[in-house]
Amino acid sequence: MSVTDPERLREIVEEICDAMTAETERGRVADYIPQLADVDPDQFALALVLPDGAVIAGGDADTRFSIQSVSKVFALAVALGRVGDALWNRVGREPSGDPFNSIVQLEHERGIPRNPFINAGAIAVTDAILARSEPREALGQILQFVRFLAGDDDIAIDPAVAKSETASGWRNAALANFMRDFGTIQRHPDKVLGTYFHQCAIAMTARQLAHAGRFLAFDGSLSPGGSRAIAPRMARQINALMLTCGHYDGSGEFAFRVGLPGKSGVGGGILAVAPGRAAIACWSPGLNAVGNSHLASIALEMLADRTGWSVFAANS
Amino acid sequence: MSVTDPERLREIVEEICDAMTAETERGRVADYIPQLADVDPDQFALALVLPDGAVIAGGDADTRFSIQSVSKVFALAVALGRVGDALWNRVGREPSGDPFNSIVQLEHERGIPRNPFINAGAIAVTDAILARSEPREALGQILQFVRFLAGDDDIAIDPAVAKSETASGWRNAALANFMRDFGTIQRHPDKVLGTYFHQCAIAMTARQLAHAGRFLAFDGSLSPGGSRAIAPRMARQINALMLTCGHYDGSGEFAFRVGLPGKSGVGGGILAVAPGRAAIACWSPGLNAVGNSHLASIALEMLADRTGWSVFAANS
Amino acid sequence: MSVTDPERLREIVEEICDAMTAETERGRVADYIPQLADVDPDQFALALVLPDGAVIAGGDADTRFSIQSVSKVFALAVALGRVGDALWNRVGREPSGDPFNSIVQLEHERGIPRNPFINAGAIAVTDAILARSEPREALGQILQFVRFLAGDDDIAIDPAVAKSETASGWRNAALANFMRDFGTIQRHPDKVLGTYFHQCAIAMTARQLAHAGRFLAFDGSLSPGGSRAIAPRMARQINALMLTCGHYDGSGEFAFRVGLPGKSGVGGGILAVAPGRAAIACWSPGLNAVGNSHLASIALEMLADRTGWSVFAANS
Amino acid sequence: MSVTDPERLREIVEEICDAMTAETERGRVADYIPQLADVDPDQFALALVLPDGAVIAGGDADTRFSIQSVSKVFALAVALGRVGDALWNRVGREPSGDPFNSIVQLEHERGIPRNPFINAGAIAVTDAILARSEPREALGQILQFVRFLAGDDDIAIDPAVAKSETASGWRNAALANFMRDFGTIQRHPDKVLGTYFHQCAIAMTARQLAHAGRFLAFDGSLSPGGSRAIAPRMARQINALMLTCGHYDGSGEFAFRVGLPGKSGVGGGILAVAPGRAAIACWSPGLNAVGNSHLASIALEMLADRTGWSVFAANS
Repeated sequence: MSVTDPERLREIVEEICDAMTAETERGRVADYIPQLADVDPDQFALALVLPDGAVIAGGDADTRFSIQSVSKVFALAVALGRVGDALWNRVGREPSGDPFNSIVQLEHERGIPRNPFINAGAIAVTDAILARSEPREALGQILQFVRFLAGDDDIAIDPAVAKSETASGWRNAALANFMRDFGTIQRHPDKVLGTYFHQCAIAMTARQLAHAGRFLAFDGSLSPGGSRAIAPRMARQINALMLTCGHYDGSGEFAFRVGLPGKSGVGGGILAVAPGRAAIACWSPGLNAVGNSHLASIALEMLADRTGWSVFAANS
Repeated sequence: MSVTDPERLREIVEEICDAMTAETERGRVADYIPQLADVDPDQFALALVLPDGAVIAGGDADTRFSIQSVSKVFALAVALGRVGDALWNRVGREPSGDPFNSIVQLEHERGIPRNPFINAGAIAVTDAILARSEPREALGQILQFVRFLAGDDDIAIDPAVAKSETASGWRNAALANFMRDFGTIQRHPDKVLGTYFHQCAIAMTARQLAHAGRFLAFDGSLSPGGSRAIAPRMARQINALMLTCGHYDGSGEFAFRVGLPGKSGVGGGILAVAPGRAAIACWSPGLNAVGNSHLASIALEMLADRTGWSVFAANS
Repeated sequence: MSVTDPERLREIVEEICDAMTAETERGRVADYIPQLADVDPDQFALALVLPDGAVIAGGDADTRFSIQSVSKVFALAVALGRVGDALWNRVGREPSGDPFNSIVQLEHERGIPRNPFINAGAIAVTDAILARSEPREALGQILQFVRFLAGDDDIAIDPAVAKSETASGWRNAALANFMRDFGTIQRHPDKVLGTYFHQCAIAMTARQLAHAGRFLAFDGSLSPGGSRAIAPRMARQINALMLTCGHYDGSGEFAFRVGLPGKSGVGGGILAVAPGRAAIACWSPGLNAVGNSHLASIALEMLADRTGWSVFAANS
Repeated sequence: MSVTDPERLREIVEEICDAMTAETERGRVADYIPQLADVDPDQFALALVLPDGAVIAGGDADTRFSIQSVSKVFALAVALGRVGDALWNRVGREPSGDPFNSIVQLEHERGIPRNPFINAGAIAVTDAILARSEPREALGQILQFVRFLAGDDDIAIDPAVAKSETASGWRNAALANFMRDFGTIQRHPDKVLGTYFHQCAIAMTARQLAHAGRFLAFDGSLSPGGSRAIAPRMARQINALMLTCGHYDGSGEFAFRVGLPGKSGVGGGILAVAPGRAAIACWSPGLNAVGNSHLASIALEMLADRTGWSVFAANS
């Protein structure tokens, strides 16, 4: 049976928050830039937004964190809104079977990234957005879109994070230059990377992120029958990509264990979607071996188990 | 809105069958063995089994075809029933990003196939079943399980297909020997391959296959609240694997376009699952570039569009 | 200055034998079959045959060892004698940049092995020999050729080694089946492998092996101006392949350090060639990380340093 | 027999020049920058410098061309002179089995290029030179070394070529950023690439290049017993690397056909070495499928055949 009673959901969220707070094995915080390395690993947050707009939140749900690759979902929606299906000429829709920053696949497939949720793919998506706007303007549009989705203007880019990423992002620079060579991206790599790193540096709370994810839970609208952000078909497509590709080389495992579309970021956040039931944000800074939040992955598995929200269950 | 009215579903199935019959581009029939090469490419079938057991079928729904890799779903269920989660010690759960018969991934990951739905993975699953049974007995068990699922004892292995596969299956022999070298499979490759090729040679009609797929649509049972074939959790897990890995290197595309768990075979069949709504079998012999049925893929996309059954839609 | 004085050469060989006997780090003996695993790691042999036929030998130069992959040189000469340059339609001539038994390269290059000295390439060479002879006859021809080259009929195949290899050669069976799938080999893999494993099981002493290598040192003849075994051009070509591909993924290193064409085997033997100066056999059972004899590699570097025989030196 | 008579050599060079001039199939001129694309494909040059300093030259031996990757030989010698064997901590010595600009190998081997003659390796060598000098100074040193080797101060960098390379060198930028991420290079990629592109833009005539190659033909000295440029052991090592890695994925083929250490450049030049006999430069702008000069490869094969200079021949 699928759980819809808010009281029961509140209990479940509390149980999960308690269990996660008690966990001693918390994964390993990303340390490639000081702004991420310095985050307190003992934090945990879980937030749900239900169809009626009710919010169920627990833990550090009002603490901001760097959403990092979760931003790829929002940038993808912006790019699809701009260039439509032409986007798929330069980015694929298949899981990669490789780490998030692999360049091997790019060489084997002549510069076309496998999907928009690995780094190369997200950089190509950013380049598509830049086809019609300069970096500052493009960033403004992505940020405005996120604020609109979340219904909250108090969301911003952390400039220190963006600066650190830019200074140390050699691997992403390699990917961008490589794709520039193949023509997958058309603007100068430095310009695309600057935009990309700033987009990844958006900081949000779990509560804000759950709100920003509503459009994927409710067929493209901010609530069932509410304001439309994107077309229903596009929402389904983004959910499909999140399910098959949203956790890098742990995507199959997440689908197997949790059964919900989700997108993780190296800051420890995961945005998950239970279509028709809830938009979900979970956050804990420590990462597992494939780069996804260790505790957020476990917490979402518990949530799916207890709510029956897996998209693969009959009673969904 | 999700369609549940049988009359409307009957109309939809008819429309799809008509459209597919009219299609001139039908893909390319597999030709590596004469038994597949000789199949008439103009055939098409679509069959649905609803929660109440009602069947909606169109086209050549009573013509037998070689289910080939669709059998991997049934073998996986049998193996999980036998060895449980220990199976995952030798087979992964991640999409592969490679063709169905690639050996590259095996070398890079020390003989562990990425998932049970690529050939190497399915061969490893067969070896797990053989851990407790000799080939003849193991095949009997797989076949009995399929007959039980379909509620139909008139399902059999086509010995001519099995023989042809064995005689020409060099690539699969390479995979099996390679995994034997790494210890992923423990019995002699010839024994494992013999069993595997026979299992792939099961012949069924679309109507039978749809029935055999009910256990995945209804949380492990043959109907909602009916006889249990496997545990609900296992049904969800198999569905997740079908969604992420069921169409080889076209899995992401199928999830993106159709949004239903599915498993294809080189004989042109696809078993698809709309959890809680229907078990679906579709068949047309011609294949697309990545080895999945060309028309069955299109037909299932039409079905999902018109029914709203995508697992990624809110109104599911 | 290049050393040619036999007395000085004798001193050098003695010094090297003394140094190698004193070495405590001796590498690791191959242990995948008992017949190799049981060989005493403390053995070492070095043997030179000069243009005038004089032999300078030290250490265990009269102890037989399994020549294993050194046999690939002799099989290549036999195959070229049979099918000529047509052989190169199915085997390349480029170094592989991969371990000796990698299957990755084969998939990327559609079943054509990079060169005749990796396992896949040698199996393809054996298949070429079998184009005109049954296995028993083909083996007889290879063995006769080696006996002729060595001028010694007391050279034989060790049947226990061949049997063990056959029983455990899963990786080579994978390579053979893979190439059979691509059509690179045309006979049944079992037949080709049987021949291949027997050819690798030829046992020789270092003294015999050095004699058998004369044809490569003297432009295809057993001595300068003596009986011709193969054409001079073919001897140069085989030397070139030995230099670029003779030590698997340690070929570049051997060329860099030693500067002589050479071919190693997992039994610990290395056949090396100083064109115009000497045929050289060196043997010690322990292997280094890339599968070449640890001490034989060091000994040949010492020999090249002291004799000035590197093909890359002006005074050669 | 090895040819040493200058009159016979002169005849051979003339025959080759005549044959090459008559060739209609001339390969394809590199066209990724206009400065290379605009070179007249009908040009051909061959120049030999003998031990006594005599020069035998034919064709367009006094026309400058962009030496491009041939410069990697000179940069390697400079770097080894600076940091010695420590250079090998960040560059390997094995053939790559990949195109000159592949990034796949770098990812598989954690950022360490296989050898100093693929682009990634040469960029790492340039970074080593920059460890102790700023770009301008480093370039000055490389250029001075080449002038010293050639005994000719009239050798310069073509600034238009360097500028074009910099503007379009996305693939090399990807390699440099990738290695920067792994720590293989330590300076900013832009700085390393600027130096690298200028070094590749050295322009020389075939006559000058043959003189510049003498140090490799004569054990590190400009003539037998003459001024020493590098140690004899280092000259042998560079020759070994040229033989195993000097022609990208055509290195094995060049060794097989020509049998001389050589290094090619995309400008159509090849520097080849017959140790003790001659330094050889050959040039023709059209390239073959693996990126080496089509006619220069053929011409050097003819030269080796007619002179008997292969390092793999007994009478060498």
